[in-house]
Amino acid sequence: MKNVFYAQSGGVTSVINASACGVIQTCRHHRDKIGHVYAAQHGIVGALNEDIYDTDQESDAAIAALKHTPSGAFGSCRYKLREEREYKRLLEVCQAHNIGYFFYNGGGDSADTSDKIARLAKKIDYPLQIIHIPKTIDNDLPLTDNCPGFGSVAKYIAVSTLEASFDVRSGATTSTRVFVLEVMGRHAGWIAAAGGLAADYDIPVVVLFPEVPFHQARFLDRVKAQVGRYGYCSVVVSEGCRDSDGRFLADQGTRDAFGHAQLGGAAPVVAQLIKDQLGYKYHWAVADYLQRSARHLASAVDVEQAYALGRCAVELALAGKSGVMPTIVRDSSQPYRWHPGEAALSDVANQEKMMPTEFISADGFGITQACKDYLYPLISGEAYPAYTALGLPDYVTLKKVLLPRKLAQFTI
Amino acid sequence: MKNVFYAQSGGVTSVINASACGVIQTCRHHRDKIGHVYAAQHGIVGALNEDIYDTDQESDAAIAALKHTPSGAFGSCRYKLREEREYKRLLEVCQAHNIGYFFYNGGGDSADTSDKIARLAKKIDYPLQIIHIPKTIDNDLPLTDNCPGFGSVAKYIAVSTLEASFDVRSGATTSTRVFVLEVMGRHAGWIAAAGGLAADYDIPVVVLFPEVPFHQARFLDRVKAQVGRYGYCSVVVSEGCRDSDGRFLADQGTRDAFGHAQLGGAAPVVAQLIKDQLGYKYHWAVADYLQRSARHLASAVDVEQAYALGRCAVELALAGKSGVMPTIVRDSSQPYRWHPGEAALSDVANQEKMMPTEFISADGFGITQACKDYLYPLISGEAYPAYTALGLPDYVTLKKVLLPRKLAQFTI
Repeated sequence: MKNVFYAQSGGVTSVINASACGVIQTCRHHRDKIGHVYAAQHGIVGALNEDIYDTDQESDAAIAALKHTPSGAFGSCRYKLREEREYKRLLEVCQAHNIGYFFYNGGGDSADTSDKIARLAKKIDYPLQIIHIPKTIDNDLPLTDNCPGFGSVAKYIAVSTLEASFDVRSGATTSTRVFVLEVMGRHAGWIAAAGGLAADYDIPVVVLFPEVPFHQARFLDRVKAQVGRYGYCSVVVSEGCRDSDGRFLADQGTRDAFGHAQLGGAAPVVAQLIKDQLGYKYHWAVADYLQRSARHLASAVDVEQAYALGRCAVELALAGKSGVMPTIVRDSSQPYRWHPGEAALSDVANQEKMMPTEFISADGFGITQACKDYLYPLISGEAYPAYTALGLPDYVTLKKVLLPRKLAQFTI
Repeated sequence: MKNVFYAQSGGVTSVINASACGVIQTCRHHRDKIGHVYAAQHGIVGALNEDIYDTDQESDAAIAALKHTPSGAFGSCRYKLREEREYKRLLEVCQAHNIGYFFYNGGGDSADTSDKIARLAKKIDYPLQIIHIPKTIDNDLPLTDNCPGFGSVAKYIAVSTLEASFDVRSGATTSTRVFVLEVMGRHAGWIAAAGGLAADYDIPVVVLFPEVPFHQARFLDRVKAQVGRYGYCSVVVSEGCRDSDGRFLADQGTRDAFGHAQLGGAAPVVAQLIKDQLGYKYHWAVADYLQRSARHLASAVDVEQAYALGRCAVELALAGKSGVMPTIVRDSSQPYRWHPGEAALSDVANQEKMMPTEFISADGFGITQACKDYLYPLISGEAYPAYTALGLPDYVTLKKVLLPRKLAQFTI
């Protein structure tokens, strides 16, 4: 029987471990067909270094706890295979450990890597089935309705925008008028769009998308109008927002006391602009890693889908598939129904899915009903982790027992 | 029968409305002794302007929903009564609306204001009973073991630090080594201390307290040692942290492209310092309002205490008390037991309670077991709000029906 190799890649999410749980639990249900389940230490880097964990050493309870533990339990990496010798090494490591199934859990880059490994394996006639399991908070992978990881960060940003807006509303008469929240999402505005859902609670929210070039005068007019009408305003700005010259908002040529370029966030830049031009008192927040690790506020649908695609990946492999990725196919939004599909990795690699025009309101500062219909199902349901009696989440740290190495050392 | 006047003051919290709920529900249980329950629009400012809501117009269900709704439902303000004529106006408004009980829900400033109103009422022989209900995320009020509002922000910061640290740990080999989280707390390090609880999950956390002057070399040594040992490190920096000259970390003389002073946070300054001096890749977050409005992750003990002190305030008033504040008296930490006490407002006003020395570890960068014994009971239990089917919290916005004015306009 062939063994399984599982690896996590790129920025982690609050539910990538739910996919790991889906892979490992499904493999444990098929002990008649699948040998050992190994996991790479720190993703593909561990695979190259032959730093491999034996997940069979982990208890069923520990594996089950992965479903409610954020981050990458085995470690992840930002490392792109570039050289032919790295691809070859990867296959040598697989061969040395009798790997027949490789599950790579990541975003666009790892889909590309998976595709290339699959091609090389075929070329050298090494029998390796490669399945890519989608994961990205940015929601920018093509051919799947949405990506595991996105629903939870969308829920976190929608709830946080709502809560902070209630806070600003409380005190705006004598204190802060404008609250600015910076969110992630790279070149795509999916996460920023989630902040726009707070408008359904009669909250004045101005969203700055990467898809819409920042126009200072129009933005300030909009903020002024909202403050005029409501007495306050919330701004959700995507880290990827740029002006019409393609320059990021965060890159304003700011210098520190020594003349060094100051790497700030977009939120303080937007807040300072509002203060300088409109005179409003402001507060700003940068959610950064808090948003993508917030397992305490995961979407139940997201957890379910992350787990399901881990399980599907194993089922696809057992059905003889390779070079594919399980996807999420939406059957209906109201009520929400979906089923798992599959896509060829050659079609997935190196594409980014931006917000469609019809999801952004005509003025460029909000979301449409079509966007809400898309988003709401993805943030629905709560899937709280268990908490200890002391009041903190009962997140698991695995034992992580390394396999003895069989090959000579490799220099990355 | 005399009417009740309730007002919210200062920065709001995720549980101040639970105190409002405690006040209003308890008054509704005593309709034989208490007349109408009024609430000031935007705190003391609304009281001066005679902008007064009639809470009797709100349904029982809406009042019950206050218990799980963050922010100040009636509006709050940052406004300090300074002039004699303002105090007099306040009593005129009370007289015009037959107010016999005034419940002021706030921090140190509002305790002082309450004390002064009580003295003036006594002096002019106006029968007004004044009870101050403590509220502050900063936990800096004296004579109470802790303040409603603190437990929930402490839970949020502890959980968020833990979650983000798991994230950094996952990818540190090839990506971010140091994560910096800026937290609130003004001059007191209580909230920052909560971030230190993540150390109980074997997370390397370096805490920067306002109580400990920032020493650059010692701090960098500490971060370097933690990264050396663990491969990564989290830093929790209080907004009130200063260097030995008393200068805030956020105030580093940074200038924007036009030479204007740049008002940044402490987190980007600390992160940049680490990058410049140690070369580590970093990420930083500023939680700002997200932390104090995060009702989605409230501590059950905090919600219970916020509600209980609202109820106690009414009971103290009915027992004939005035010029007092209900407090939290800790009977035992393990198991946690507490009972409500009371303090004279003259003893509360204008004092700040800092972190005691024995709560800060000898090196100045962490918390002691005594501090953990203090903190854990305050973050224990989860008290989730209800969610709509769409996946957002079912927070209430009250109808807020204003009373007709009876007095001439007043200019603040």
